[in-house]
Amino acid sequence: MEKLTIIKVGGKIVEENDSLHSFLHDFSSIEGYKVLVHGGGRSATALASKLGIESIMINGRRITDSETLKVVIMVYGGLVNKTIVAQLQSLGINALGLTGADLNCMLSEKRPVEPIDYGFVGDVKAVNGTMFAELIVKKIVPVLAPLTHDKKGNLLNTNADTIASETAKALTPFFDVTLMYCFEKKGVLFNENDDQSVIPEINHTQFKQYVSQGIIQGGMIPKLENAFDAIASGVKQVIITKADAIDGQSGTRII
Amino acid sequence: MEKLTIIKVGGKIVEENDSLHSFLHDFSSIEGYKVLVHGGGRSATALASKLGIESIMINGRRITDSETLKVVIMVYGGLVNKTIVAQLQSLGINALGLTGADLNCMLSEKRPVEPIDYGFVGDVKAVNGTMFAELIVKKIVPVLAPLTHDKKGNLLNTNADTIASETAKALTPFFDVTLMYCFEKKGVLFNENDDQSVIPEINHTQFKQYVSQGIIQGGMIPKLENAFDAIASGVKQVIITKADAIDGQSGTRII
Repeated sequence: MEKLTIIKVGGKIVEENDSLHSFLHDFSSIEGYKVLVHGGGRSATALASKLGIESIMINGRRITDSETLKVVIMVYGGLVNKTIVAQLQSLGINALGLTGADLNCMLSEKRPVEPIDYGFVGDVKAVNGTMFAELIVKKIVPVLAPLTHDKKGNLLNTNADTIASETAKALTPFFDVTLMYCFEKKGVLFNENDDQSVIPEINHTQFKQYVSQGIIQGGMIPKLENAFDAIASGVKQVIITKADAIDGQSGTRII
Repeated sequence: MEKLTIIKVGGKIVEENDSLHSFLHDFSSIEGYKVLVHGGGRSATALASKLGIESIMINGRRITDSETLKVVIMVYGGLVNKTIVAQLQSLGINALGLTGADLNCMLSEKRPVEPIDYGFVGDVKAVNGTMFAELIVKKIVPVLAPLTHDKKGNLLNTNADTIASETAKALTPFFDVTLMYCFEKKGVLFNENDDQSVIPEINHTQFKQYVSQGIIQGGMIPKLENAFDAIASGVKQVIITKADAIDGQSGTRII
């Protein structure tokens, strides 16, 4: 099978012109088939704030009422997505920006209101892997915004890490999939205050051990749970690394 | 050749939930291949206003500085486009939202700054008709936002009427194209104060005569110029009608 690299990028990288441009340049140089999944939370928070809408986060997830939903549709589906698509086109990449509603590519279900009512937030139920594979073999590069839909006419806010892992899982029948999570640190760290203390490789037993020892904590836990879930579903490798190191030679490899 | 209907809808219709839903229901019932082109100017003006950005229009066109460009990318490419796509999916239509940057489907050039500097506004240079035709025969319904790109990484604000007529022209080698402009009136009127005074049919000679007599004026002039340009380029028929009458049996037919 041919190789497919799915890269999820979020944080400041996608929201500042210089770092975005540099990242997209590196992304465009990756050999073979690829998919890009982006976030945009900081820009959403900034726009919400300008509009007088308070951003409420619980466990790192945004409470999405109807006004906040409009904000994330504008920022994720519009500003961030289309800015990336236009820049990739200028780099010779035939990018196509998609939300889950476009081509019905990612269906979700509104999250139950218990124990926490997150509002218009969706949990992924189905990814149209066949359709993605058809685009990808035509050298189209899907650029996925963290929005899904319920096929009842509603868009739903969906975590970008989850979008990336669900897409990776759905594409394992068609490609040898590498899933890469890019963020601001060099990888999963032994010591969060020492950016050089990258854990080069981690398996599920070690992960549970590090969590129980408090070495891995906070937002890294769901990120790694997503990663192990992807591996268990046939994704060949998952790498957590810094956005300026997407050559796949550094960072933390999840095995 | 098979029939293709390209509908451009703008104004209040796309920006109020009830009228949008009713319009999309009618749109989904149109037989055969179809494309939807939307505007969103009122929502853009409303968002700009909330953000303290003044909307300046000259000859009905928005002066688009860099902050205004972000607003139209968010509103046209995000909010309006994705809301329509999600609702069409709920109506069983396999919609795909596109700006000109997506799949490089519509290339434009920044308008010269003389005589008026409109800012980030693009004039269409090339439409990828083959790519659109490939999507359409797969029963995918493109939903086009009024944004294009210059392939240098810049998105450009582009008039939705022009997007519709350029798309129609580019698809004439593949389909029998009907182009329909929907707006708030029943058609081109003899007397703008009498909504019943629809001109049923108009040719180019009559158009020039009506303009010289002052019967046709204002924003209707460029709309009709676009329409005659489309006819001259092989579009089979152009109809200007009310959004609740897209069965093609009423309105003004441009011949």
